[in-house]
Amino acid sequence: MLKIRVVLVGVEGSVNLGFIARTCVNFGVDELFLVNPRADLDEALIYSAKAKDFLRGAVIINDLGKALEGVDLSVATTAKGYSKGDALRQAIDIVTFIEILREKPVESLALVFGRESTGLTREELKQADYLVTIPANPEYPVLNLSQSVAIFLWELWKIRGMQATNVPPQASPDELLLLERIIGEITERVIGDEEKRRRVYMVVARVLRRARPTRYDARMLTYWFRRVLNKISTQE
Amino acid sequence: MLKIRVVLVGVEGSVNLGFIARTCVNFGVDELFLVNPRADLDEALIYSAKAKDFLRGAVIINDLGKALEGVDLSVATTAKGYSKGDALRQAIDIVTFIEILREKPVESLALVFGRESTGLTREELKQADYLVTIPANPEYPVLNLSQSVAIFLWELWKIRGMQATNVPPQASPDELLLLERIIGEITERVIGDEEKRRRVYMVVARVLRRARPTRYDARMLTYWFRRVLNKISTQE
Repeated sequence: MLKIRVVLVGVEGSVNLGFIARTCVNFGVDELFLVNPRADLDEALIYSAKAKDFLRGAVIINDLGKALEGVDLSVATTAKGYSKGDALRQAIDIVTFIEILREKPVESLALVFGRESTGLTREELKQADYLVTIPANPEYPVLNLSQSVAIFLWELWKIRGMQATNVPPQASPDELLLLERIIGEITERVIGDEEKRRRVYMVVARVLRRARPTRYDARMLTYWFRRVLNKISTQE
Repeated sequence: MLKIRVVLVGVEGSVNLGFIARTCVNFGVDELFLVNPRADLDEALIYSAKAKDFLRGAVIINDLGKALEGVDLSVATTAKGYSKGDALRQAIDIVTFIEILREKPVESLALVFGRESTGLTREELKQADYLVTIPANPEYPVLNLSQSVAIFLWELWKIRGMQATNVPPQASPDELLLLERIIGEITERVIGDEEKRRRVYMVVARVLRRARPTRYDARMLTYWFRRVLNKISTQE
């Protein structure tokens, strides 16, 4: 699994730092490095909710170069992704970056975020392998730092194989087939014309699949349709 | 282009509210509704950066139902997307939801977010067409509210502007109500226990809505369910 190190350079806001620590835990970040932080770390702890231990474990250093040691790839992030004729400000957008990462995976990655006020300096930008930006509303594309971190980590989380437990298990193919079989039996009993029956059945089955029932949904539906089928059958 | 209304129910944190207003402008949200906000709006303005006018233009009301009026589709969000055997807590994950939206676009969407402390109540959850969750670290999947909003808006931002016009017309609310009425009548005839009947009906109706039937689908389904109902009724 891809190892991720988040590197914050000169972070200024304590709220942002707290929120970022929490987001790091939400999306399984391995390490947090703080380069010359300006934020109040004690205040940040308040906003980090259940990520206090993670924030306390952050590595605090004064040199970006050291924060990038030991990773396969370093990525600087910026809201100013493009400046005409400026060789440094030719960012790729995050969607493209994620595609690249999917095609050519690495084992470890450092994600570098700059100051809320002024971002990363040109000297800092030069040290990263990639410059990546989040494309947003042309009228106001500058995201708050902690929102920007959340979006980067979410995009990386998606390619790391989400193993979340806060989503219900989906109905299995067998469970869906069973449901369709019962629906088919009902259809045979309620629609005489064969051509019409075939067409109606197709729509009902398709609508069912499109709803992407969870396992729980599928069981309730199976129960319901079975009752319907029994009612019809016993009265024939 | 897809119109987006962000609805915050009982938002408690002023920082969160400010950050959210900013993110809304970053990702071109059309409307912000605040249902019984608890946050300090003046303090929130400080954190909204260049989104002050947008935040000042928020609609403040005391009824979630009113906040959902006039949109094609309403989506409740939750960190607790799954609870075994609970008919209400069967969320789909945001990636699946976005796929559905790509396949079957709508014109307007309300995104509902609950309180930082306790989320949305069961009564509130019931009012939305979909329940959607962001899958995250099983050890700590609960995102901060403003990070969660950012991720939702980012995912929607990616699909906006890609709205196709060569899509079939959707079933109208009336057509869906008719279908639900017939399903209700069938349910009364096949399930005796009242509590069980109520729960099963709720799941069947929700799965139907989630499938987002087209007008054509709705007509075929109405035909099918009517035939089923007739078969059951005439044989009683």
